[in-house]
Amino acid sequence: MTLQTSELNTQAVLAMKGAGYYSARTAGAKHAIDRVRPMLEDALQSLPQQAILRLADFGAADGGTSQEMWAGLIATLRANGDSRPIEMLYTDLASNDFSTLFRTMQGMHGDTAHAYQNSYENVFVHGCGTGFHQQLMADASLCLGFSATAMHYVSKKPCEIEDHVHMVGATPEERAQFSAQAAADWERILLARAAELAPGGRFICLNFGIDEKGRYLGHTGGQSMFDNFTRHWRAMRDGGRITKQEFIRATFAQHYRTVEEFTAPFDDPSSTVRQAGLKLISVETRLTPCPYNALYRGSSTKMSSADYAASLIPTTRSWSETVFRTALASRPEAEIQALLDAFYDDYEQQVAADPSGHAMDYIHILMAIEKQA
Amino acid sequence: MTLQTSELNTQAVLAMKGAGYYSARTAGAKHAIDRVRPMLEDALQSLPQQAILRLADFGAADGGTSQEMWAGLIATLRANGDSRPIEMLYTDLASNDFSTLFRTMQGMHGDTAHAYQNSYENVFVHGCGTGFHQQLMADASLCLGFSATAMHYVSKKPCEIEDHVHMVGATPEERAQFSAQAAADWERILLARAAELAPGGRFICLNFGIDEKGRYLGHTGGQSMFDNFTRHWRAMRDGGRITKQEFIRATFAQHYRTVEEFTAPFDDPSSTVRQAGLKLISVETRLTPCPYNALYRGSSTKMSSADYAASLIPTTRSWSETVFRTALASRPEAEIQALLDAFYDDYEQQVAADPSGHAMDYIHILMAIEKQA
Repeated sequence: MTLQTSELNTQAVLAMKGAGYYSARTAGAKHAIDRVRPMLEDALQSLPQQAILRLADFGAADGGTSQEMWAGLIATLRANGDSRPIEMLYTDLASNDFSTLFRTMQGMHGDTAHAYQNSYENVFVHGCGTGFHQQLMADASLCLGFSATAMHYVSKKPCEIEDHVHMVGATPEERAQFSAQAAADWERILLARAAELAPGGRFICLNFGIDEKGRYLGHTGGQSMFDNFTRHWRAMRDGGRITKQEFIRATFAQHYRTVEEFTAPFDDPSSTVRQAGLKLISVETRLTPCPYNALYRGSSTKMSSADYAASLIPTTRSWSETVFRTALASRPEAEIQALLDAFYDDYEQQVAADPSGHAMDYIHILMAIEKQA
Repeated sequence: MTLQTSELNTQAVLAMKGAGYYSARTAGAKHAIDRVRPMLEDALQSLPQQAILRLADFGAADGGTSQEMWAGLIATLRANGDSRPIEMLYTDLASNDFSTLFRTMQGMHGDTAHAYQNSYENVFVHGCGTGFHQQLMADASLCLGFSATAMHYVSKKPCEIEDHVHMVGATPEERAQFSAQAAADWERILLARAAELAPGGRFICLNFGIDEKGRYLGHTGGQSMFDNFTRHWRAMRDGGRITKQEFIRATFAQHYRTVEEFTAPFDDPSSTVRQAGLKLISVETRLTPCPYNALYRGSSTKMSSADYAASLIPTTRSWSETVFRTALASRPEAEIQALLDAFYDDYEQQVAADPSGHAMDYIHILMAIEKQA
């Protein structure tokens, strides 16, 4: 699996692993973003006529996966004669690696092709380290907002999930609590964007979610990744290697919203979100194939099942480890490391033994939202 | 000596030492800033009437030393009925620790008294990781800019200083090269601010420099800090512990401008800076006493000369070490460490033997500059 770096960052994994660690693994996240570009090109057709053309990328992590897209949009704007000053605001949590982001945007990492800040006059890059549940800039100043794969995190875990690691395997009661938290978060997110957007401005977002076929990340037919996490984590509990409490504490602070959950605030004309002036322009779901699986299937004569497992699972580990590590936090570091190694080794052996059905396809819910004039 | 963290950051020392390392050492820098507050209060009287009240702190490092001042200014604005949205832009190099800055502004480090972002509605904190020699925001959008102790760094060393470590001890030919580089940098800095400032907006800055009495940082009567650096560095060369080239390579990338150098762009009505609409409102020089020395002299019965040396020199080391470390960069780390330890030990022993005249008073040149309407 390739991974949107915003997900890593939100979990403070990047800080642990260091800059650049994931750069080679973000091809899939970038691919998902590139496919959304027509929705942003469409938004360019009716941008608000503010004196400053303000853009924003919410939960942007190091900005790498969306950089080419933004560079292309700015090229289009300039080619179309829009010479307004452009201010680009990249937001993420305070723990985000903003230094890597700023270096990337200035082409300091060697790749200058999309360092649009250098290529155009009057393009300014700023950052914001406040979470996107809050309003992050002045009222009615934002012309075009964007967010990729960042808003499936809930602002707090409403409960631990007792017999699974993720809300997709929760009991109905647990799931209802996650759903309520996610609904409250989504309302806050939308109201904050409603305040920021200038009339006519759009917010385009793609988020992990559950599509109309019930598919979600790592669960698109065949094996289910979160079930497999649970299976191996449970085996460690049943084998006495972790405690019952450690088993329970491994709960992803995520909610994969359904299409209905994403669109609910737009259904009722009296909702706070509709009253704030937001209108849903479009919603669709999209599957982005797992690039590791594509590589494996496309070159089956060269890549063994063990090779495939050895590419897929460490990548999975890169963004999920923090959840299991946190569950083990009361132990000495060496013990934690050994337990995590054993856990992911078990999963890797499962995949190596029979890779069929194991893949990390993305399922995204894509939305275009407009602030009414 | 207490130290402005912007200086550290510009030299990437903070990254090496980690967040919070200097927090206890910034009392003097904060004191210098607090004393400039009346100049900013004065600027509030005639702020441009932009819809967004945009403020900026250039070379702000972690923002800690100026936070109380900004919190006070925002309190004044709100108390006076100015309810415009406020956007605060903290700028520094991309290598700056923006995470610490953003956490500080959200009161995440425990000190919430001046976390003004939390205390007032419609106050937004942003960062910018592009150097302040460039324009950093849209034309005519800045209402009030500020910078403390950040602009004595030259954007590049025009030459090594052969027989001293700092331009204050350079030959006339070397000094002329540093002076020319600093003049070009200062012109770029001012032209960038001229573009950013809205008509009527002000840029208030305090910078290390040389005052009308020839005083500068660590050279305010008695001993001269940069001469002492040179003395002990030269002794290491003469003792065969470092090479001649290593001696030469220890050159601070700094220029302490005189008052005349700071004001020169404003003297000639045909200068680029004047043509860009900038006007010098005031210039003055100010000495901020070394807090370590004040502590020593104020409690001489309790603090020995060795204690004083042990407080003064490690603090000096915290911001100067990077220069000497860079000069030794071709050696193994253990050798570098041993040589640096010996170098600062020599200096500490000098101070312990006779502390008289050793102090790290700040000398600042304070300027208020206005963009003409």
